[in-house]
Amino acid sequence: MAGVQYAPFSSTVDHGFWQQLTDKKLNEYGLDESSREIYGFFSNDTAPGISPQLMVDYSAFNSDWKPPPRSLPALGLLYNTNTIEKFKEIDKKELLNAVGKQMWEELRDGVLLREPSRLIRFILLTFADLKKYHYYYWFAFPALKFPEKSNYVESPEPLQQKLSKEQLSSLISAYDKYQTSRPSYSPFFLICCNEDNYSVHDLAEIEKFLTSSQKVIFAACDPCSFPGYPGWPVRNLVTLLTYTFAGKLATVTVLSVRDRTHAGKRDFGSSLIFTVEIPKLEDLTLEGVPDCVGWEKNEKQKLVPKLVNLSSSMDPVKLAESAVDLNLKLMRWRLLPDLDLEKISATRGLILGSGTLGCNVARLLMSWGIRHITMVDNSKVSYSNPVRQTLFTFDHCLNGGQPKAEAAAASLKTIFPGMRSEGITLSIPMPGHMVTDSLLQQTKDQVAKLEELIDSHDAIFLLMDTRESRWLPSLIAASKQKIVINAALGFDTFLVLRHGVKNNQGPETRSQLPDTTKAPISGCQLGCYFCNDVVAPGNSTRDRTLDQQCTVTRPGVSMMASALAVELLISVLQHPLGSNAPADASSDDDPWDRDSASSLGIVPHQIRGFLSRFHQILPASQAFEMCTACSHMVIQRYEKDGFDFLLKVFNEPGYLEDLTGLSAMHDATAEHEVWGFSDDDDLNSGPGSLDTMET
Amino acid sequence: MAGVQYAPFSSTVDHGFWQQLTDKKLNEYGLDESSREIYGFFSNDTAPGISPQLMVDYSAFNSDWKPPPRSLPALGLLYNTNTIEKFKEIDKKELLNAVGKQMWEELRDGVLLREPSRLIRFILLTFADLKKYHYYYWFAFPALKFPEKSNYVESPEPLQQKLSKEQLSSLISAYDKYQTSRPSYSPFFLICCNEDNYSVHDLAEIEKFLTSSQKVIFAACDPCSFPGYPGWPVRNLVTLLTYTFAGKLATVTVLSVRDRTHAGKRDFGSSLIFTVEIPKLEDLTLEGVPDCVGWEKNEKQKLVPKLVNLSSSMDPVKLAESAVDLNLKLMRWRLLPDLDLEKISATRGLILGSGTLGCNVARLLMSWGIRHITMVDNSKVSYSNPVRQTLFTFDHCLNGGQPKAEAAAASLKTIFPGMRSEGITLSIPMPGHMVTDSLLQQTKDQVAKLEELIDSHDAIFLLMDTRESRWLPSLIAASKQKIVINAALGFDTFLVLRHGVKNNQGPETRSQLPDTTKAPISGCQLGCYFCNDVVAPGNSTRDRTLDQQCTVTRPGVSMMASALAVELLISVLQHPLGSNAPADASSDDDPWDRDSASSLGIVPHQIRGFLSRFHQILPASQAFEMCTACSHMVIQRYEKDGFDFLLKVFNEPGYLEDLTGLSAMHDATAEHEVWGFSDDDDLNSGPGSLDTMET
Repeated sequence: MAGVQYAPFSSTVDHGFWQQLTDKKLNEYGLDESSREIYGFFSNDTAPGISPQLMVDYSAFNSDWKPPPRSLPALGLLYNTNTIEKFKEIDKKELLNAVGKQMWEELRDGVLLREPSRLIRFILLTFADLKKYHYYYWFAFPALKFPEKSNYVESPEPLQQKLSKEQLSSLISAYDKYQTSRPSYSPFFLICCNEDNYSVHDLAEIEKFLTSSQKVIFAACDPCSFPGYPGWPVRNLVTLLTYTFAGKLATVTVLSVRDRTHAGKRDFGSSLIFTVEIPKLEDLTLEGVPDCVGWEKNEKQKLVPKLVNLSSSMDPVKLAESAVDLNLKLMRWRLLPDLDLEKISATRGLILGSGTLGCNVARLLMSWGIRHITMVDNSKVSYSNPVRQTLFTFDHCLNGGQPKAEAAAASLKTIFPGMRSEGITLSIPMPGHMVTDSLLQQTKDQVAKLEELIDSHDAIFLLMDTRESRWLPSLIAASKQKIVINAALGFDTFLVLRHGVKNNQGPETRSQLPDTTKAPISGCQLGCYFCNDVVAPGNSTRDRTLDQQCTVTRPGVSMMASALAVELLISVLQHPLGSNAPADASSDDDPWDRDSASSLGIVPHQIRGFLSRFHQILPASQAFEMCTACSHMVIQRYEKDGFDFLLKVFNEPGYLEDLTGLSAMHDATAEHEVWGFSDDDDLNSGPGSLDTMET
Repeated sequence: MAGVQYAPFSSTVDHGFWQQLTDKKLNEYGLDESSREIYGFFSNDTAPGISPQLMVDYSAFNSDWKPPPRSLPALGLLYNTNTIEKFKEIDKKELLNAVGKQMWEELRDGVLLREPSRLIRFILLTFADLKKYHYYYWFAFPALKFPEKSNYVESPEPLQQKLSKEQLSSLISAYDKYQTSRPSYSPFFLICCNEDNYSVHDLAEIEKFLTSSQKVIFAACDPCSFPGYPGWPVRNLVTLLTYTFAGKLATVTVLSVRDRTHAGKRDFGSSLIFTVEIPKLEDLTLEGVPDCVGWEKNEKQKLVPKLVNLSSSMDPVKLAESAVDLNLKLMRWRLLPDLDLEKISATRGLILGSGTLGCNVARLLMSWGIRHITMVDNSKVSYSNPVRQTLFTFDHCLNGGQPKAEAAAASLKTIFPGMRSEGITLSIPMPGHMVTDSLLQQTKDQVAKLEELIDSHDAIFLLMDTRESRWLPSLIAASKQKIVINAALGFDTFLVLRHGVKNNQGPETRSQLPDTTKAPISGCQLGCYFCNDVVAPGNSTRDRTLDQQCTVTRPGVSMMASALAVELLISVLQHPLGSNAPADASSDDDPWDRDSASSLGIVPHQIRGFLSRFHQILPASQAFEMCTACSHMVIQRYEKDGFDFLLKVFNEPGYLEDLTGLSAMHDATAEHEVWGFSDDDDLNSGPGSLDTMET
């Protein structure tokens, strides 16, 4: 008798599957290498000459998965390894035998007879190189070597040689009736022939029919289109039948159902019908677990894995999008499972000042996954800019120079097309810079634009080149209770601070003395950039010599201040209390108190750096009740009188100091308290003057 | 009698003058606003209809200045202000009168009669906005109002109406004889007429001729071509004559010499001859100083300054060159007069690893004026790179990605065309990465290339993504005694260190214990990146999961480490001892010892940063006598056996440890000393493993 040979499955993986796997790996599995249940399917309409295909697609991971209409389900097990070495070295024989053992147990327990679709199994071993979008994979289609060998009693013949057209059509009707009554198509079933009438039944009903006189045929949906060879599902059916009928039947008749379409019509004619021998019980080994086979071979019949490189077929812009997310999501795998990346990426950043600080801050926000960035500046790119301002090139300087804000915003998109960046050329009205009648409407428009911008963003970076240009945005942001991060540079020093975000519930109670206790100050009580000043901002651009107009700083200072400014924002965003996160005013040598910290660490108020000593300190100070930018009195007046109030500030030099009581304090104190940087006297001509140096 | 009117000078400034002024301001004057002597000249060949020009050009600052051939000298005083406000507000009347006073004193002392060319004076008031290449300037051509008014006794007549052609030609001969016998042409002289013979003499010889019967004419070279009006030099001559002859002569005859070319021939015919009255002594005020006039008016006869904008006329590449130098040179004006920018710009930087660190380090070296930068990497730009690696854009990722080193080097040139940057795609052979026979020649070539690169550069940055790839360059650089700056990143930590640069004079004497004394360690005794390790580098790229392959760091960490790496190099370069600068191992809270510091501050050995606490520490440690990279034994073996030695290291895992004695030490100690970062245990799987995270 001739031995039975089955045509194995070929695997087909839709790109959607790899995208889903990428997503699962990044967001769900992380470093967990546990096996996962997935789902595949095969069609019973394979064209002639095509290998039988088992397919997995984007739906493979769905917990409520169903096969596509008229397709048959396959139950898979995904092993995704963390490294290519693990992929190579994993014991493939063992993986397969583990599934074989499970199938054998289900066979013995009768599970497979009741749920024969569990006979169609696959293993998918993968390694996903998400940096390169290279996916290494290897399928196995487990089949128990039980019996060791099957023999034909009657060799396969096409069904059309046995049945008339009418009979075939009657069979199709019975088949359709059976399959459509089920939640999904079953790959295995019984066919009962009563003269020319066919009926189709669950395999589990076999006992009922065995005792009747009706002719019973065991059927499997067969994706194989090769004449004379049944496909892989049939092999598993024969295993089931052998186990079930050994000692009871000597032979079984099997139909491999090929539900094809021919000339536009359903056609079962190419289905194969044959009879196989059921070995005698004494010829079968029922102890232990039979060996399992099924690793897929390539077209040269070699046992090797496959590789798909999706990078070339993916939309480059989408590739960039997911690659950029990759680095961030990886943080959650091992280091920071609690990191709230969505909160960060939803933050809209407004960058006032597009110079050395602005360019670096924008780049770092982009690195952290922030997409919505608005750059503001009022100047054009000049030849000295690109070597320090990292969003500009030589070409931006030609022909008088492009507007800085727009050039910077455009550059962000050339770096990463997914950016929603915009550049706004805008001058910020400033105290001490007179608004003449001819400038009135323009100034009104500028104030309105700035208010609108601050309103529509979440985090405001003050990175301008004068102290007084920071006043108006400080005030507006305080009124709108936005997060403000301020950075300013000296020659080899820098200041980074977050403004306190007040709840506007009344006047502050801070005394005029600096706080000397070490208790953390809560976020709503922290000072702003102007809180340490006892003079109102005024026109500082007069009489600046060339070295005061330009960025005369050690180049590293801007990168350090920019980095700390952005990391400070991120720390605020990750703190459970957000902008109300307390600032630890204790020395940086104290042990880090994890209770008052975010998952990223402490959230300081200020970071002052001194490059000459490679040193940083973390002062914290309370809001000042006479502050010209954030005191209750100033905010109240701004909210009440709006532009009229601002106009007075712009035009009347003493107005702010009179309003806040600073003038009275000046009169009362012979010597002003000045709490500024101390060790660069030639650099700092007064409190808060650090910022006159940077562009 | 008609009053005399003189045509004033118009100023003409050559672009070369502004370039020289820029250079002087940047490199010499700085913030010093003192007046400076400069030189100008006028031609005696002004075409008809053209205003008389006084010119200054690039030579104006030369101390051994001479006017161009046949031109007449003018003595200038440059007032260059530091700010536009000072330019506007400076007391112009006072400036002019100060020069007038000097002229008056020289008149009284007889200086002007002896050196009459000192009568042609000018003042140039300037403000140079070197950021924009805008030059504001205002000329004055001082003339004393002495006498208050001059009157013609005989009105000006063209000389050709008085003299025959022969007489004119005789005069020209006498003029040429006189002028060419002098070091430079004199604007003022005497003409003596003896019948038809003319002779020309110094003004100082007047006494000799006054008593003779010869007719004497006082002559001034006259740049003015307007008929009937003598030019400005004639005015000053009349002042000199009035002072000299008041009370002695009633009139003087003056010739304004117009040495023109007509139809290709010399022509004095348009010179004006006239006689002016010398006021009586009693009509003159000789006490005090007469008023001085002469600020230049514009074409509408308004007293306003001029502005020239050179940015549009300059070669953009040159504009960029000088703009970039500007920021650096400005540092010397006020802050760091000793800063040796030339030493920095002459440094050739080799950047091994063109990832986040490499890109930022290259940008910062460029900001510091370093032009010669070579980038090295062995990989291509991938989609996740540009948002963190600041020399790449989306376009660099397309079509499989451009080679990183070459793309980065090209980007540097798009930022600043003056860069001499080069990109080298090169894999660095590593210990533990086996060299099979088929790789032998390639590995030899790689080693040779790396040796050549380290040889031809001054500062080597180790910024690669594995520990073991730093071994070979560490060894080669130690052998060649180059400065090495090493930077490595953890998730929120970084390490920046400089390698000790040894003098190779024998084995080190450090014990195996960490140094606990606080005495500064001299630069030649400092440890390298591998000195703290008690295991030799090996293959760390096996079994790396995705999060270990990628840059899983807080984005700010790279900018901070890059900034500190570059600033550390600059501090080393500026230290009087260079790479032998001692590292202060004392705590950063100690007072900064200026004696052991460079003008930029202290020069630490290592900077270790902890972003979770916004904190930095500055450890220093001595070289380790068993170091696998920089110990005497290893360097000696490398220098003796070359590639054969390296091949053993690459291929034999235990070789380095056996050679250095580490193996013996391992056997002798139950627990290894491990001095690594301490508070990120899940990140650091072993000593020195920090760097496994960054790209």
